[in-house]
Amino acid sequence: MGESFGNYKIGNDAEIMNFISSANIACGYHAGDPMVMANTIKLALEHHVAVGAHPGYPDLQGFGRRNMNLSPNELYAYVLYQVGALKSMTEAQGGKLRHVKPHGAMYNQAAVNEEYAVAISRAVLDIDPELIVVCPANSPMYDVAKHLGAKVASEAFADRAYTDAGQLVPRSSEGAVIHDSEVAITRMMNLLKTGEIESINGNSIKLQADTICIHGDNKEALEFAHLLHKSILDSDIELKPMGL
Amino acid sequence: MGESFGNYKIGNDAEIMNFISSANIACGYHAGDPMVMANTIKLALEHHVAVGAHPGYPDLQGFGRRNMNLSPNELYAYVLYQVGALKSMTEAQGGKLRHVKPHGAMYNQAAVNEEYAVAISRAVLDIDPELIVVCPANSPMYDVAKHLGAKVASEAFADRAYTDAGQLVPRSSEGAVIHDSEVAITRMMNLLKTGEIESINGNSIKLQADTICIHGDNKEALEFAHLLHKSILDSDIELKPMGL
Amino acid sequence: MGESFGNYKIGNDAEIMNFISSANIACGYHAGDPMVMANTIKLALEHHVAVGAHPGYPDLQGFGRRNMNLSPNELYAYVLYQVGALKSMTEAQGGKLRHVKPHGAMYNQAAVNEEYAVAISRAVLDIDPELIVVCPANSPMYDVAKHLGAKVASEAFADRAYTDAGQLVPRSSEGAVIHDSEVAITRMMNLLKTGEIESINGNSIKLQADTICIHGDNKEALEFAHLLHKSILDSDIELKPMGL
Amino acid sequence: MGESFGNYKIGNDAEIMNFISSANIACGYHAGDPMVMANTIKLALEHHVAVGAHPGYPDLQGFGRRNMNLSPNELYAYVLYQVGALKSMTEAQGGKLRHVKPHGAMYNQAAVNEEYAVAISRAVLDIDPELIVVCPANSPMYDVAKHLGAKVASEAFADRAYTDAGQLVPRSSEGAVIHDSEVAITRMMNLLKTGEIESINGNSIKLQADTICIHGDNKEALEFAHLLHKSILDSDIELKPMGL
Repeated sequence: MGESFGNYKIGNDAEIMNFISSANIACGYHAGDPMVMANTIKLALEHHVAVGAHPGYPDLQGFGRRNMNLSPNELYAYVLYQVGALKSMTEAQGGKLRHVKPHGAMYNQAAVNEEYAVAISRAVLDIDPELIVVCPANSPMYDVAKHLGAKVASEAFADRAYTDAGQLVPRSSEGAVIHDSEVAITRMMNLLKTGEIESINGNSIKLQADTICIHGDNKEALEFAHLLHKSILDSDIELKPMGL
Repeated sequence: MGESFGNYKIGNDAEIMNFISSANIACGYHAGDPMVMANTIKLALEHHVAVGAHPGYPDLQGFGRRNMNLSPNELYAYVLYQVGALKSMTEAQGGKLRHVKPHGAMYNQAAVNEEYAVAISRAVLDIDPELIVVCPANSPMYDVAKHLGAKVASEAFADRAYTDAGQLVPRSSEGAVIHDSEVAITRMMNLLKTGEIESINGNSIKLQADTICIHGDNKEALEFAHLLHKSILDSDIELKPMGL
Repeated sequence: MGESFGNYKIGNDAEIMNFISSANIACGYHAGDPMVMANTIKLALEHHVAVGAHPGYPDLQGFGRRNMNLSPNELYAYVLYQVGALKSMTEAQGGKLRHVKPHGAMYNQAAVNEEYAVAISRAVLDIDPELIVVCPANSPMYDVAKHLGAKVASEAFADRAYTDAGQLVPRSSEGAVIHDSEVAITRMMNLLKTGEIESINGNSIKLQADTICIHGDNKEALEFAHLLHKSILDSDIELKPMGL
Repeated sequence: MGESFGNYKIGNDAEIMNFISSANIACGYHAGDPMVMANTIKLALEHHVAVGAHPGYPDLQGFGRRNMNLSPNELYAYVLYQVGALKSMTEAQGGKLRHVKPHGAMYNQAAVNEEYAVAISRAVLDIDPELIVVCPANSPMYDVAKHLGAKVASEAFADRAYTDAGQLVPRSSEGAVIHDSEVAITRMMNLLKTGEIESINGNSIKLQADTICIHGDNKEALEFAHLLHKSILDSDIELKPMGL
């Protein structure tokens, strides 16, 4: 959310807010600017959606999706800066920052790089130990953040296939992305009910899904969020913001 | 302070910290980056120097010294973002943000542009009403900030001449800048004792000097800070950080 | 044209290229990036559209639409850099750069600021004296560029009202923008045939229209370009790229 | 050279120009800005030093020294943009661009990544096939550039140790950097006379040194450049700019 920048518009934030319970808001590095941030925070608070920070790499030209070789100290400081800015801006509107989810390449690199996972967790803990760090399910990052004493949430991706080991099939592999909305929603509803999901090889694997990620920057996002939201409401599963 | 950026070094922060009581720390727009900010906050806290935010225009290439025609809403959001980031980063080190001083062209434009002064004051009040807004002595900005309910400090410049109306002689006019350190210090000590200063026309004028500005990015700054600090300590004037 | 940036898309360049004869391509400062520039040059060359540079202020966050107080030397160097990059990139594809049109606030400030007009004209002349400088009709900038020996083109805006003195009615005034496509096209066709246009006060005034500007970043642009293109082809007026 | 940026100064360009024959000038991505570029080109032309482009990653905050995972198409476009800008700016002063040397992480990644080496070589060839591509001695990049038909120069580093295979000992290894100026100069003079250098293991290895790199951004650079320049002049080795 909040990935527009100046004159550039991305996403359909105002409508998607109706169907989510927690929002990850860009913080001005990979996307977003202070005007966009303030507007997106306002939108989230109006919709009683939990506000989260979505810090990224300092790479607007690459939308934070290109791996960068930062030192852990740089990463720590960049997360502190971005999350700190969003936290103060949220509080200036009478709201409260609830969680932090690294964006794009930062998320992917931290998932498997322990030094990065430590740097991000420390930054979040130093800002506010009540903040939840959103980590990929079954990732080393989840364990690192938990070990350091951070609150954590394990995240599942509705439109992605998983390996037998419970990790994301790389986008470059065939079958990595699930394009059929109905299939994806059926998978997620099963996961929420059973705690298990079918791997790309057809095996049933365990996956902890405290939160389900929907990307805000593509056209199908709105319809998909709408359908998943409805499916959950129609079930007896409780839907609530992280940290509440 | 904290106006280095990545590989680029400016100023002599570590030494100047010995002779000041309040520091204005750049916030990543006109200068500074998260690593530099964290290090400068650490330095200030170690020296018991009050930490202040020094937000500027998004113009690293011009060091925030070029006038820009922002909308008041943009200015509000840019100040919120920068001050918010520095505040969170200061608190992450166990410190407390005390004051806000706009930088360069933002300071000069806000001094006389009521909409800008309102935008900055509102941003500071929305972040924390205990924060002090540093304004030029005798400026409309001072009155605006005070009227809106902000805590304010009136700032004098040791190395600048003043008009009969108590305002800064523009740098482009002859005699605007005082290059002789002894003259400048004598003027400041008189000002601190009497509340008056000699204008460029030789008249004695009133000037409220709650704080005296020393620029950190030139070579004479260190010697000058040292001398002024000593002069004040040798007098019976109490020297303390703003807001304490 | 070419005002997308990284993951951010603006405009409908591929379709508009069918209905124009000269394109102003952003150069990476106010908008555009090297990938976008290369693709837009390719598109223009494929459509036999003359390639022009559209340099702007270093203000991506403001899309180059905010006045900035650059020194003439800075402006000169910024134009040289941007036009130089686009020129080399055009030649790398076997094309030729034909013209230069400053963007947004740079265009508006240069229109009436002689020092800016000189800086831009000098930069263009120093790169290639065959390049055409696009200037607002009846502007001081047109006279300055011509006086310095630059090739010039006088530009009319199809969707804008003009004063009796032949200058653009400021956007902030009522009636400044013409929203009705048919009215706008009728005005332009009359202008092309007679060299005169009706001012906002109903008087007939002279206006030199060597080129007509269509903005590429709004939705109506495509339809409008299509209609104007058709109207000109249906007349006996010759339509050709600037500089050919 | 030309690695200052706005208000930030790096290096001692004016003095070092006296002792070199070819300069690599930053192009605004990892360092440098249009004003700095224009001034550095002027300085080089005045000293009859060959002007070369020093393109880098879009990472001012990291000074282009952090690995980034660009696509080859992005890399191609970024090199085209930067080299193109510097080429036009050089020609605007009546000079001629002679060579291209990628900077920092781009140089290191391209040295061993064939796709990157191809992208850079193609960009240089598309701008001007007369331009020389500067490559590390004994690197795959050298072979790739040569194979594609580019003019190439093989570069030796005076202050670095080499493996038995003729490649740079990584900075992280002990003994990688030679701090003693006299040792370094003796090694370089031997290399220039014999075409061989002593590896870190004490073996004599072949190394093609068409050009010797001196970094411009540290204090010892000036003294070192002075001494090496003198040693070469005192020998019977001819010193001349690349490409002349």
